[in-house]
Amino acid sequence: MMRFVVAPTGFKECLDADAVADWIGVGIRRVVPAAIVDTMPLVDGGEGSARLLADSTGGELVPVAVTGPVGERIDSHFALLGGPGPRTAFVEMAAAAGLALVPPTQRDPGATTSRGVGELISAALDLGVERITIGCGDSGTCDGGLGALRALGARVLDVDGREIGEGGRHLAEAARIDTADLDPRLAKVELTVAVNPDNVLCGPVGVARRYGPQKGATPERIEQLARGMRRWSALLAEHSGTDYSGLPGGGASGGLGAGLAGVLGARLESRFDVFLDGGELVHRLRAADLVITAEGSIDASTALGKIPAEVARRAKRHGKPVIALCGTIGPGAESSYDTGIDAFTGILTGPVELADAITRAPELIADATARTLRMLLVGRALTA
Amino acid sequence: MMRFVVAPTGFKECLDADAVADWIGVGIRRVVPAAIVDTMPLVDGGEGSARLLADSTGGELVPVAVTGPVGERIDSHFALLGGPGPRTAFVEMAAAAGLALVPPTQRDPGATTSRGVGELISAALDLGVERITIGCGDSGTCDGGLGALRALGARVLDVDGREIGEGGRHLAEAARIDTADLDPRLAKVELTVAVNPDNVLCGPVGVARRYGPQKGATPERIEQLARGMRRWSALLAEHSGTDYSGLPGGGASGGLGAGLAGVLGARLESRFDVFLDGGELVHRLRAADLVITAEGSIDASTALGKIPAEVARRAKRHGKPVIALCGTIGPGAESSYDTGIDAFTGILTGPVELADAITRAPELIADATARTLRMLLVGRALTA
Repeated sequence: MMRFVVAPTGFKECLDADAVADWIGVGIRRVVPAAIVDTMPLVDGGEGSARLLADSTGGELVPVAVTGPVGERIDSHFALLGGPGPRTAFVEMAAAAGLALVPPTQRDPGATTSRGVGELISAALDLGVERITIGCGDSGTCDGGLGALRALGARVLDVDGREIGEGGRHLAEAARIDTADLDPRLAKVELTVAVNPDNVLCGPVGVARRYGPQKGATPERIEQLARGMRRWSALLAEHSGTDYSGLPGGGASGGLGAGLAGVLGARLESRFDVFLDGGELVHRLRAADLVITAEGSIDASTALGKIPAEVARRAKRHGKPVIALCGTIGPGAESSYDTGIDAFTGILTGPVELADAITRAPELIADATARTLRMLLVGRALTA
Repeated sequence: MMRFVVAPTGFKECLDADAVADWIGVGIRRVVPAAIVDTMPLVDGGEGSARLLADSTGGELVPVAVTGPVGERIDSHFALLGGPGPRTAFVEMAAAAGLALVPPTQRDPGATTSRGVGELISAALDLGVERITIGCGDSGTCDGGLGALRALGARVLDVDGREIGEGGRHLAEAARIDTADLDPRLAKVELTVAVNPDNVLCGPVGVARRYGPQKGATPERIEQLARGMRRWSALLAEHSGTDYSGLPGGGASGGLGAGLAGVLGARLESRFDVFLDGGELVHRLRAADLVITAEGSIDASTALGKIPAEVARRAKRHGKPVIALCGTIGPGAESSYDTGIDAFTGILTGPVELADAITRAPELIADATARTLRMLLVGRALTA
């Protein structure tokens, strides 16, 4: 009896990880009805992670109205996780300050704020949690966590002792961090920020230059934000004694990582240590005959810390075969073979508009899985 | 050492069968450099068949100027086949009267003529061949072979003894076939028409109704052509003693099959008996570890006599595994499994315009083949 571990992430702006996993399961059973299918939808901390973690741990999603990235009130939420161990909240940065919450015409990471993230943390503290994990990814801000810290009582002042304006474009004016009025409950909670360790605060691949364009920044704005991050880094170093300018993960979510670490003492942890190695993934991978992972796209970026690559690396430590399904196969996809993905395939069946492919994603995923299973069975029967 | 038999047909309006076979070979060797790749590009008698048969038999393509389907002179050709046995010509119907030769604004199967096909046969007779095979498929006509027969000396008269007009729309006026002036060389040559046996002359799925629309006929024209085919069938029966109205292949290429059979005594043979079983395909299939076939589309029509299905049926008689590659996967593609295709996969990598996919077809085919080979190798290593 074949045992499949199905460990996909979501197809961005299309289908959540749990739906992807379910439809892969449908495709498997269509060809191998007796298969054991162990689905383990995975998150990276970005968009959709809170809902999925609430679901998968048997916890709940707590609705909270917060300040959105462009200043208006929005309906947001955090996850109160279920399961044993200390009472833990998961705060998804993207649910309060994600790029998807910034209307396309207002995309300017110099103006947007992470304030809502602080408000979510505050709401989690209201429930008396002992641990809070903040998931980064898919942010629409570049304010170094300024807004979030202020929502929690911190003050950031200019040389004249006045609070600087909200938004990353004001960070270059920051002269002092005042934590006198910081929420005292923060001292008693364990704060972890789940980051992509590739993201750093400053320098040529610092967060302003690397993600500024996709968040809507002009070239001038990018350089202004880069100057702000240098100033912010200096101030955080002064305040905490740690230099966050090049620290892995300090640049996560527009510098939110460095801000929460430097001012609140939050621990920065690799998102895969948090979401993959903290769970039962490795244990379950070891029982697999075949591991199937998936993501919206397999391309040159896959090997650089995307979920299919991280799943494959872990599966390969136990010698497990790994295949990946994806919506689109992009340039450089072959580099994913180096991560332990043995083979991958796309789900598309013909020339199609992206919007149409997105609508039909469930059926396309199930069908492609079934076709792939048949191909694997042909391979298994090869004797030469 | 794995031995692959690569037996694709062309991707219509995109890439010829030999190019498809070559690029599949490139993809195989990228993953299994030591593989033995036996390429056998296949034709069905339609567009491109003459060139490929000339190439594959070591024969030559003989250029001939003929009357095109809308009456103008066009550059055409037939194949003088190489190899042992009687001197044989292959006449591709589509090279003289194919739909692709009819400008879109002039597509009317009531007006187009198969005259050029007769001119090609005449040119082949000039070279003293002993056998002529006429390949059907991709025709732009529906004249029952009227034009072709006239080019060879036959006359078709109305009740007043006058020659009827050219084009299928005049067939309903036909009252008598006069073969007094028929080219006498025809008596000494073996004529075979390679047909799709599914195509019949008359009735609800007769050639006028089944293919009229795609050849540009209006509903009125279709019924006029259907009446013409009934009349033509009666006349052919009178002339030859055979009822062609429902005979398999009589409807091939707008009734050209029935016309050449009824007037010239040509033999109608299934195109797959001619092109697949006449060659070395089966012999080579028997030596394969894996058979890879391909066509532009795998869909509900594949099982109904398309090349991948016919290859699979023959491979399965010898228990060989068969996979198929295709440009697009259409509705009903799963029915192809019943033919012996064990698994199939598409070549597309992302949302794309058809024109762009066509331009990139060689690379897409090689890449998809390589990905598929990797998937097969994953399967081969599965132990469960």
